[in-house]
Amino acid sequence: MIRIEDILAGQRRAIAKAITLLESTRADHRAEGDALLTELLPHTGKSLRLGISGVPGVGKSTFIEALGLFLIERGHRVAVLTVDPSSSVSGGSILGDKTRMERLSMDERAYIRPSPSGGTLGGVAEKTREAMLVCEAAGYDVVIVETVGVGQSETAVAGMTDMYCLLQLPNAGDDLQAIKKGVMELADLIVINKADIDAAAATRAQAQITSSLRLYGFHGHDPHEGKTWHPRVMQLSALKSQGLDQFWNAVGEYRALETANGRLAHKRQHQAQAWMWDRIHAGLRQQFSQAPAVRAVLADITSQVLGGTLAPSTAARLLLNKFSSGDTSHA
Amino acid sequence: MIRIEDILAGQRRAIAKAITLLESTRADHRAEGDALLTELLPHTGKSLRLGISGVPGVGKSTFIEALGLFLIERGHRVAVLTVDPSSSVSGGSILGDKTRMERLSMDERAYIRPSPSGGTLGGVAEKTREAMLVCEAAGYDVVIVETVGVGQSETAVAGMTDMYCLLQLPNAGDDLQAIKKGVMELADLIVINKADIDAAAATRAQAQITSSLRLYGFHGHDPHEGKTWHPRVMQLSALKSQGLDQFWNAVGEYRALETANGRLAHKRQHQAQAWMWDRIHAGLRQQFSQAPAVRAVLADITSQVLGGTLAPSTAARLLLNKFSSGDTSHA
Repeated sequence: MIRIEDILAGQRRAIAKAITLLESTRADHRAEGDALLTELLPHTGKSLRLGISGVPGVGKSTFIEALGLFLIERGHRVAVLTVDPSSSVSGGSILGDKTRMERLSMDERAYIRPSPSGGTLGGVAEKTREAMLVCEAAGYDVVIVETVGVGQSETAVAGMTDMYCLLQLPNAGDDLQAIKKGVMELADLIVINKADIDAAAATRAQAQITSSLRLYGFHGHDPHEGKTWHPRVMQLSALKSQGLDQFWNAVGEYRALETANGRLAHKRQHQAQAWMWDRIHAGLRQQFSQAPAVRAVLADITSQVLGGTLAPSTAARLLLNKFSSGDTSHA
Repeated sequence: MIRIEDILAGQRRAIAKAITLLESTRADHRAEGDALLTELLPHTGKSLRLGISGVPGVGKSTFIEALGLFLIERGHRVAVLTVDPSSSVSGGSILGDKTRMERLSMDERAYIRPSPSGGTLGGVAEKTREAMLVCEAAGYDVVIVETVGVGQSETAVAGMTDMYCLLQLPNAGDDLQAIKKGVMELADLIVINKADIDAAAATRAQAQITSSLRLYGFHGHDPHEGKTWHPRVMQLSALKSQGLDQFWNAVGEYRALETANGRLAHKRQHQAQAWMWDRIHAGLRQQFSQAPAVRAVLADITSQVLGGTLAPSTAARLLLNKFSSGDTSHA
């Protein structure tokens, strides 16, 4: 039995048990987990939710560990969560592995949890979102959600955080090619890491990325200048812990602006609603695929579609009728 | 009453009436339409399905009219269909407007049908797919499906055609910026239109686009060389009817290669299955939104989610349970 008070008191064992419960797919666990979430909910929402991504080798772990240590020294409590859909394939998560962030993971003021494993990106993202709520209730006031760029995982992380930061390497010329435009558009802050290695390259990269941001429409006269956040590009060196203060200042500025203009509250509401519909759509697909009336005829109808004797739209209507009527007779 | 024989005989009035029936959303029309489609299906599939897109001003109408006239002179029968989701907003379709292709539309060997209007992109695409089947049954052996780049419409058109061609302007330097990478990746053939205006620019654009195609992995040693189609870039001038023969040769080469290696048949099967599931998912969403048990509580649950008293995943499970049990009591 998990006691709410233990979570609210920040007891690590209770936090871990709660997250494990929420990760379970067993129906009775799910009901228990939903009850727990509803009780925790009034105590959530007070953290800053920070999304971090970047290609392998960009230095995500080093950055997050350096930032985490920087923050706990300033009185914050930091949770590090991960969205790694590939963990279901490899059987274990690479991201969020505690040994990667040895100093941070040993500190009582930080809580590091590897990615849930198994299932679709949507399923993994849901569990990370719920874990985030548990961490918030437990008093962590900065929640970092990390992902490596696997397919749509950047979008999922941007969709559950207040601010989304993309880490980049100084050799932007080649690297820019590798960035999907869509990911660039998601970023509130682009951080050129490892700037100490080649200062000239980092400065060139900063100019280049800044100018490509302008291509996406962040240019010209803005009537809301100074009242709305504009994506920006900065340099730092996580390894040397250089630039973390500027980074944290930028985050603070973002939060202050977007709170004052109401956009942060709006973003969170929009995220909550999108999350609900994402789960509804996933659930509908599951109900459909598991319905006996559908299972009885799906293979036969699919082969008629593949064989060209039934139009796909006709097949869809037939199956939808089976599903809604619960009719298990053959088509 | 629409007679199958009239459609198979290529009677324009019967074709138009069949497509209008299939566009109707009335349940009795839908049932009649499905019966008609199933009867027509054995007579479909024999055409070449050609997708065409490009930004406004690239010369799509001029190209399609020139190609259509070129083809009917060589004994083909050509149907021109359109996917334009914006037609539901403007109340009328711009693309596919017959006055745009005056000479082609007056020819008995061509059939031009504007985009169906109303509904989502998925709904518009479905109706165009069904119209394509009617045209095939009526003996049109080349079906051109045109779209302007509105959101995801290029993907929809690539998903219903055998070969997808992207029209480009010669000033590729600026223009490349405007192309979504994803669209480039869909293209089997990239056509630089208006090459007569500036031959040097067209040649530069061809080189530039060819090299950017390589970035997407179409380079290096290929063990299937000569057995598999590789996307290519060519120039033409639709206005002067220059290059249409090379275009049509490339299309023929594509079709021969991809038929011989089995990929075209595989692509069509994949498209049919994806179409079926797309319609199933859209139908599930509709069933859910219209279910009395869901409607009774959706507003209340949504406001609890927005108010932060109910977790989105809990809300989703609650609504899914309502939906599957048909329970209309309040949450």
